[in-house]
Amino acid sequence: MASAIKKIGVFTSGGDSPGMNAAIRAVVRTCAYLKVECVGIYRGYEGMMEGDFKVMDARSVNNIINKGGTILKSARCLPFRTKEGRQVAYDQLKKAGIDAFVVIGGDGSFTGALTFNKEFDFPVIGIPGTIDNDIFGTTYTLGFDTALNTAVECIDKIRDTASSHNRLFFVEVMGRDVGHIALNAGVGAGAEEILIPEENLGLERLLESLKRSKQSGKSSSIVVVAEGDKTGKNVFELKEYVEEHLPIYDVRVSVLGHMQRGGAPSCFDRVLASRMGVKAVEALLEGKTNLMVGIQDNTITLTPISKAIKGHTKIDKELMRVSDIMTT
Amino acid sequence: MASAIKKIGVFTSGGDSPGMNAAIRAVVRTCAYLKVECVGIYRGYEGMMEGDFKVMDARSVNNIINKGGTILKSARCLPFRTKEGRQVAYDQLKKAGIDAFVVIGGDGSFTGALTFNKEFDFPVIGIPGTIDNDIFGTTYTLGFDTALNTAVECIDKIRDTASSHNRLFFVEVMGRDVGHIALNAGVGAGAEEILIPEENLGLERLLESLKRSKQSGKSSSIVVVAEGDKTGKNVFELKEYVEEHLPIYDVRVSVLGHMQRGGAPSCFDRVLASRMGVKAVEALLEGKTNLMVGIQDNTITLTPISKAIKGHTKIDKELMRVSDIMTT
Amino acid sequence: MASAIKKIGVFTSGGDSPGMNAAIRAVVRTCAYLKVECVGIYRGYEGMMEGDFKVMDARSVNNIINKGGTILKSARCLPFRTKEGRQVAYDQLKKAGIDAFVVIGGDGSFTGALTFNKEFDFPVIGIPGTIDNDIFGTTYTLGFDTALNTAVECIDKIRDTASSHNRLFFVEVMGRDVGHIALNAGVGAGAEEILIPEENLGLERLLESLKRSKQSGKSSSIVVVAEGDKTGKNVFELKEYVEEHLPIYDVRVSVLGHMQRGGAPSCFDRVLASRMGVKAVEALLEGKTNLMVGIQDNTITLTPISKAIKGHTKIDKELMRVSDIMTT
Amino acid sequence: MASAIKKIGVFTSGGDSPGMNAAIRAVVRTCAYLKVECVGIYRGYEGMMEGDFKVMDARSVNNIINKGGTILKSARCLPFRTKEGRQVAYDQLKKAGIDAFVVIGGDGSFTGALTFNKEFDFPVIGIPGTIDNDIFGTTYTLGFDTALNTAVECIDKIRDTASSHNRLFFVEVMGRDVGHIALNAGVGAGAEEILIPEENLGLERLLESLKRSKQSGKSSSIVVVAEGDKTGKNVFELKEYVEEHLPIYDVRVSVLGHMQRGGAPSCFDRVLASRMGVKAVEALLEGKTNLMVGIQDNTITLTPISKAIKGHTKIDKELMRVSDIMTT
Repeated sequence: MASAIKKIGVFTSGGDSPGMNAAIRAVVRTCAYLKVECVGIYRGYEGMMEGDFKVMDARSVNNIINKGGTILKSARCLPFRTKEGRQVAYDQLKKAGIDAFVVIGGDGSFTGALTFNKEFDFPVIGIPGTIDNDIFGTTYTLGFDTALNTAVECIDKIRDTASSHNRLFFVEVMGRDVGHIALNAGVGAGAEEILIPEENLGLERLLESLKRSKQSGKSSSIVVVAEGDKTGKNVFELKEYVEEHLPIYDVRVSVLGHMQRGGAPSCFDRVLASRMGVKAVEALLEGKTNLMVGIQDNTITLTPISKAIKGHTKIDKELMRVSDIMTT
Repeated sequence: MASAIKKIGVFTSGGDSPGMNAAIRAVVRTCAYLKVECVGIYRGYEGMMEGDFKVMDARSVNNIINKGGTILKSARCLPFRTKEGRQVAYDQLKKAGIDAFVVIGGDGSFTGALTFNKEFDFPVIGIPGTIDNDIFGTTYTLGFDTALNTAVECIDKIRDTASSHNRLFFVEVMGRDVGHIALNAGVGAGAEEILIPEENLGLERLLESLKRSKQSGKSSSIVVVAEGDKTGKNVFELKEYVEEHLPIYDVRVSVLGHMQRGGAPSCFDRVLASRMGVKAVEALLEGKTNLMVGIQDNTITLTPISKAIKGHTKIDKELMRVSDIMTT
Repeated sequence: MASAIKKIGVFTSGGDSPGMNAAIRAVVRTCAYLKVECVGIYRGYEGMMEGDFKVMDARSVNNIINKGGTILKSARCLPFRTKEGRQVAYDQLKKAGIDAFVVIGGDGSFTGALTFNKEFDFPVIGIPGTIDNDIFGTTYTLGFDTALNTAVECIDKIRDTASSHNRLFFVEVMGRDVGHIALNAGVGAGAEEILIPEENLGLERLLESLKRSKQSGKSSSIVVVAEGDKTGKNVFELKEYVEEHLPIYDVRVSVLGHMQRGGAPSCFDRVLASRMGVKAVEALLEGKTNLMVGIQDNTITLTPISKAIKGHTKIDKELMRVSDIMTT
Repeated sequence: MASAIKKIGVFTSGGDSPGMNAAIRAVVRTCAYLKVECVGIYRGYEGMMEGDFKVMDARSVNNIINKGGTILKSARCLPFRTKEGRQVAYDQLKKAGIDAFVVIGGDGSFTGALTFNKEFDFPVIGIPGTIDNDIFGTTYTLGFDTALNTAVECIDKIRDTASSHNRLFFVEVMGRDVGHIALNAGVGAGAEEILIPEENLGLERLLESLKRSKQSGKSSSIVVVAEGDKTGKNVFELKEYVEEHLPIYDVRVSVLGHMQRGGAPSCFDRVLASRMGVKAVEALLEGKTNLMVGIQDNTITLTPISKAIKGHTKIDKELMRVSDIMTT
């Protein structure tokens, strides 16, 4: 029964992403609007086990929609992976009168939520908060759009200095297992080549592409490389490889790193977070559980978490082709 | 026959929007990739009538993907609305050997293209370039995403000073006939109220909402107003009205204006422009005409221009509800 | 004696400016470092009269160095201009055990502080926080640098759309009595002409300049206008005037407005605020009073407030000449 | 005689810095204003030796004031360090009728200019273009202010994620021999500790400082490290060292790298570049040589290049003290 839920917990878990605060705000405000109590749980499952809770009213989330990071903090929590750990967490939630929770995070966090639900029949709804865009059941995860803007703004700056010196830059962006950031930021930044974890284009092709780029009279070249690219070489090794095999280039390396996770969220991520937050609370109050809020075809949807974490997002073949054509 | 097309013209028309340059680049590079000649037409239909053309190769669009505005310039052109004007334009195109064109612009520009096609059986494909997001057949028009980011960044700054002085601001954003910018930027900026052309919420409701906001202890209030909002009052008149009827506020006004059209495009708009540009050229080469490239459910689509300009985009009711809930 | 001061109040007053939070942080942290108590006074003299105080320790100013606005809020306060009002304020300060204060604001706020010192022999030190840069005794006021960056970023965006349409824009920037923002932002944005309160260049010269600009083949023109420019016409009237007398231009207007006061402070303003805050507290503890902290030749200085508010900053003639040369 | 100079060359040399384009524009426009010819020399001394010249009129520098990098490109040139190389360059200049040049660069570029002047009695004036701020005779070099803003904006983003996870970050900023960027960006970003090349504070102090920071309840810590810091450890080694000796922290590393050189220049750098460019041309026309344009006490000055490259800039002790106090 919807009416059974009187108090909803909300927390962020795993790596932070821009828009998490906007999602927290949306969950809190929707609870206030629907006259349900809302409790912030600090540091994800870690804080849940410690009972690190704080009642949140509508005003407690003033002026956070535009802030990066998460006011509820985040953490990875090993003990929660044990049955004992989860029991401790459950006891804390019960003690605080929390009937259900909204977890904002990635697939690791969702897996925890699913197990928790199974063991304690506790209603859980997930909001996909990760810059990697690697969750099935949503076209966009929260923070992906902002991370792309951060990456292209950085690469635009690198392009300035690359052009001034006719240099080649290898720019590493985030993405251990998926290349969505690399592919989109690469196309957005006009990269000559994009190396991703999903596909090994081979080092030969890279050399060919760079040779052609030089011949075509381009004043600079940017190669965007995902952390987990399949060539088996990181950006520093790629630099050495190209310097050895194609000594026509002055090569530099830049690793964008953690700044991709921070910063004020884009309008897109703020709006997405607001819509997702509303839906998450409404779903819980309608008696739903084990679902993840997503956006598909500009409509807010619900997908079983079990599918979201097992399904695979695929790299966009059409966009890879667009990338190829653009480097003409 | 696709093979009939040897030379494609490309131009921007109507109000400029961020991403137009990225779209021009994509059209030019796709032509180069597919070994078709590409000609840039300056100042839209005006330059077409004057034969203000320039052959564009792949290198001529280097380093423009991140630039606002349009390197091909834009203009509104009255003479093209006459049969004589269009005949002049057609003669210029024929003289230059141009077989087809890609028009990047809004519904006015598309209407011109459609008439032109009808009269001269000239293949035309449209790319929706406008910040207003008011074209049917695409979830996003080119420049909308960037304009939203510009608007929320400005309102974030205004919020700083509004909060410091406990003030109420009426912020006018673009949108004469549609409220998409107002609604999305309003939700993204955490506005207390959003006034749009599609719906008249009434001044009573505005006063109520502002009164409630003050009582709830908020330190500042932002009301986002589309240029064409239905209250019948512009932001300056709204200020006076509130000062008279609700003298508890220190009210200020800000009109964001033309800066919403400029600036480096967001990654989203750059990627969208690249995808659309590829599709536009491919469609022409496949013998298609009178179609507009769009994006729907993250897939690049083609819609008859006749539908695109006649169909109406509707304001997102769900998002209006989200906005209501967020102002709790 | 320095040792007499045990508790220092700090507040912001008048129009807010970026860097005020960084200055508050610096005052609070310096007090903590030197083992003096620090009390935040809300809403300037208004909060002082109401005893709206809050003890501030080093941690209370975490993560505010990069925030626009002022966490202590600001206000203009008429009652403080009366002897009775100041007596009320003095009683509140005494009741709270506050021995001295640091006022962050402009000349109006400084005048109040000076009067207050005279009447109650109360130690006061000022930090010049205003975007206008109109305080004598400091090369830079806090917030000026950030406001300039905000203004040129906006004008860069306007330039994008102006160039695309070969338009002329009149852009109004802040500055009722002084033209420092207009002159510097105008030079920084590459404006064709800059209209300021200090000098009336005349409308004839404006027309001449615009005519020459058009003839020279420029694709767009920006005229930066201070709020209080001496032509006697505001930007809307200037638009009409030019449309009438020089109908070769498509003219538009943009009023940048309050966003110039907000936003994350530049590094320059953050460093300046930090240096000024340290000096302000140290000066008080050394028994000094009625002084304003300033920066001259990259050195932190102290100037009698009486001089700071009476002295006039002059418009930089050399920079006006540079502006002239740049519009060649 | 001033009148002897009819044609002035201008080039950028060494590492690029934001504001170089604004300086080129100012040199070109001042030449146009004073009716002297101006020639752009591509790729510094390399292009000079190759005669890679282009006549530049006022319009050729339209819309570059806000662009990062340098449209004239830059390079380091070994052959110019030989007498033979310089003779080749001289011959090229003479052949092109160039009478004098303005070199925009750092101390390496200035040393070349000085030698060149000595050998060929060729008038040279320098503009200090480097983000490092390590040139004697000017309070600010061109690009320093922009690089600081870029650095603090990046660190602000890193702070978001650091705070969300209670992490410690070592952030490397540029500065092999001087710590001006590290010190200013460190203070601006609210860093807990700043490691610079000029002074070895010792690893013990670092551990103490971090321990104290943790105890004081801070939610995150940022240590800003100049490339050439004196601890003898780079950021990756510092991470390991702290993880070993102070295992209370979850440590991460970020190397900001080349993006610090790029991006649109700040208003400060644009105005500075404009002022410096005017002065450089005027100095040449007044018959001066071997001088560097600088800014001191907000006044444009001329300093013998011989002093500029030999003198040492010193780290600002007062600012180091401010940094200490701020980390209370």
